[in-house]
Amino acid sequence: MPDQDSVYQLAGFGRSVSRGSQPAIIVVDFSYGFTDVTYPTAADMSAEIAATKVLTDYARRAEMPVIYSTIAYQPWEIKALPWLRKATGMAALKVGTRLVEIDDRTGKQADDTLIIKHGASAFQGTNLAALLAGAGIDTLVVTGATTSGCVRATVVDAVQNGFNVLVPRDCCADRAVAPHEANLYDMDQKYADVISSKEVLSWLQELADLK
Amino acid sequence: MPDQDSVYQLAGFGRSVSRGSQPAIIVVDFSYGFTDVTYPTAADMSAEIAATKVLTDYARRAEMPVIYSTIAYQPWEIKALPWLRKATGMAALKVGTRLVEIDDRTGKQADDTLIIKHGASAFQGTNLAALLAGAGIDTLVVTGATTSGCVRATVVDAVQNGFNVLVPRDCCADRAVAPHEANLYDMDQKYADVISSKEVLSWLQELADLK
Amino acid sequence: MPDQDSVYQLAGFGRSVSRGSQPAIIVVDFSYGFTDVTYPTAADMSAEIAATKVLTDYARRAEMPVIYSTIAYQPWEIKALPWLRKATGMAALKVGTRLVEIDDRTGKQADDTLIIKHGASAFQGTNLAALLAGAGIDTLVVTGATTSGCVRATVVDAVQNGFNVLVPRDCCADRAVAPHEANLYDMDQKYADVISSKEVLSWLQELADLK
Amino acid sequence: MPDQDSVYQLAGFGRSVSRGSQPAIIVVDFSYGFTDVTYPTAADMSAEIAATKVLTDYARRAEMPVIYSTIAYQPWEIKALPWLRKATGMAALKVGTRLVEIDDRTGKQADDTLIIKHGASAFQGTNLAALLAGAGIDTLVVTGATTSGCVRATVVDAVQNGFNVLVPRDCCADRAVAPHEANLYDMDQKYADVISSKEVLSWLQELADLK
Repeated sequence: MPDQDSVYQLAGFGRSVSRGSQPAIIVVDFSYGFTDVTYPTAADMSAEIAATKVLTDYARRAEMPVIYSTIAYQPWEIKALPWLRKATGMAALKVGTRLVEIDDRTGKQADDTLIIKHGASAFQGTNLAALLAGAGIDTLVVTGATTSGCVRATVVDAVQNGFNVLVPRDCCADRAVAPHEANLYDMDQKYADVISSKEVLSWLQELADLK
Repeated sequence: MPDQDSVYQLAGFGRSVSRGSQPAIIVVDFSYGFTDVTYPTAADMSAEIAATKVLTDYARRAEMPVIYSTIAYQPWEIKALPWLRKATGMAALKVGTRLVEIDDRTGKQADDTLIIKHGASAFQGTNLAALLAGAGIDTLVVTGATTSGCVRATVVDAVQNGFNVLVPRDCCADRAVAPHEANLYDMDQKYADVISSKEVLSWLQELADLK
Repeated sequence: MPDQDSVYQLAGFGRSVSRGSQPAIIVVDFSYGFTDVTYPTAADMSAEIAATKVLTDYARRAEMPVIYSTIAYQPWEIKALPWLRKATGMAALKVGTRLVEIDDRTGKQADDTLIIKHGASAFQGTNLAALLAGAGIDTLVVTGATTSGCVRATVVDAVQNGFNVLVPRDCCADRAVAPHEANLYDMDQKYADVISSKEVLSWLQELADLK
Repeated sequence: MPDQDSVYQLAGFGRSVSRGSQPAIIVVDFSYGFTDVTYPTAADMSAEIAATKVLTDYARRAEMPVIYSTIAYQPWEIKALPWLRKATGMAALKVGTRLVEIDDRTGKQADDTLIIKHGASAFQGTNLAALLAGAGIDTLVVTGATTSGCVRATVVDAVQNGFNVLVPRDCCADRAVAPHEANLYDMDQKYADVISSKEVLSWLQELADLK
């Protein structure tokens, strides 16, 4: 029986995505509900937040769009959406609570766009695809939490919506190691280039130098 | 450090989804490009096709909708879509070729709906959500291939679009064991009830008896 | 040359839509930016707001969902979206301003769902379709402003997303008579039943009596 | 009472859209069901087809994407979709029939992309937005039929999805004059620049000369 990597290689997966010339960064769900360990839905994401901040600080100075997402529910949504009967912990993420605020350690600025999302993907039920198309973005850098949930779903939707996708591995946080690694593997094989934040930064710097 | 299952349990994952009263079944990408091992993108899915056929044969007799999806590209799509530069094997799935036809062993009937999809999810870039809403469907049974790719993406989109989701484990096929298992775990924790096809059949029979 | 109504009749337009059993009401853009005539984008909509309030007050008592929409932009959206270069007046509708607040005369309650929209349709770039599907809604009553803009776009998207649509004529407001009438005609022929708010109220009462 | 044009001018409508540098043309529903007057859903569109062909012939030579759409239903869709109970004539547009084929007089070539649509808009339930984003298109020229139905819906969705929109007036056909004119007015004020096909051709030629 051939090993997994050979099977994937033969099937044409794992190729390198095109780097475009108009990048944007999305920081998925680094809100307190996911980052402050006093909440049961959270985990310690300090290192990943810090690694992401290096990228977003640079991008903002280079006038590249920086976008944050958060999950925030209104009362009727919680009744209507089947997701909240499977993933009941998410129902705590209510509009107006601290859990839905972006963690201060991200360095989010007042003018950065905030996408209110309602499921796993930052594209589903939001105008993110329209914003990226309208701004002429061709490549999306996806960071945030959790790797095996909202990051994965956002990455899959990004490429399906027509954008090249880069995932800086050290900017993605999760609650447990096995799903984190399994999903980085899937994404790297099928949807995005999973690389280091250092490599992403170098590429952003090259682009900025060209302008 | 707490184990993974405890962390997920505490975070409110892994609960049981509601069973509705109006089910439909979608069979994801049991087309020859995925099922006929003479193609590099395929794997042996005989057992999963047979297990799925039991469900679809029953559903059709009970007048429950049975939907099939296939990936099929036109020439310009292959140039335009970034996904096909990451997952280059998918570019072989061209309109008019045998690779995009549904495998005869599925027992697909002429009147079953065929969704032409363009990415991993059967919802993305298709009218599947509108069809399900228009028909009053509340619960979607997702089967097909591959577990770690198109099945996972379809399941995530199904629950995000407002539907309860059941995944019969033995009706989902993949090229490799590790991603298959890792994705069944993710889906069962976060998006769908991953159960046996026998349990799904019993539930469909209960519903049919109520009518 | 046959007259317009005969041509449409022959083409199969103008039939009556099904009334379902699970209605919801959406009130499109009765925010101050559209309703307070001190703003250049607004018009006097007092009568239509009052007629809508009769329906929403009733629906809320009968535990039928009442949803409001408003357009509200963040800074980068205004730069990114091409719509705001065609319809420049809309760029005044900024998050945090009075223009994006729902007019108090609507009687909106704190628990009513508020959809933040970014274009003409209340479905585009929002999770409205998922909410309606998740709640099992089959029929959407569309009211608000403006008839020839956001109401029309919402109605077209509602039926495309799988929902039956009713438009109470006297609950739809516009800046000018000709576009108002022309769009009510189009909607009544092609997408929705355009009826009086009295007829809608009677139907809601019949449904409530059945429960 | 101020006249309509002044009211719209004051509200910030009717401005000119940006011309981008990467155009595509979509030809909406010039299929026999709409163009062959032996069918009750059709009208004589000879002049508009001829005017459109001038643009598409040029665009193809200049290697600009030319996309066609058609409505084509499978059996279950006709049962499931509420639109077909309002606009019953559309239910004749069945997969495999001549009504859904693109009119030969358009000059469509085998490699031009064909979008199968299911409602009024060529974006709704299709992957058109993803294709345009993936190909880096920034401006969409919308032609076809009918002005007051599928053209209007496609134009509204195009701008909502982040694209600049041009509508060559003489390339848009309808069954009746009044809705045709009323919808051109709405589109020109709110969503797109409604100009002549001659102006569109000049602009495409300028772009081609720049390459």
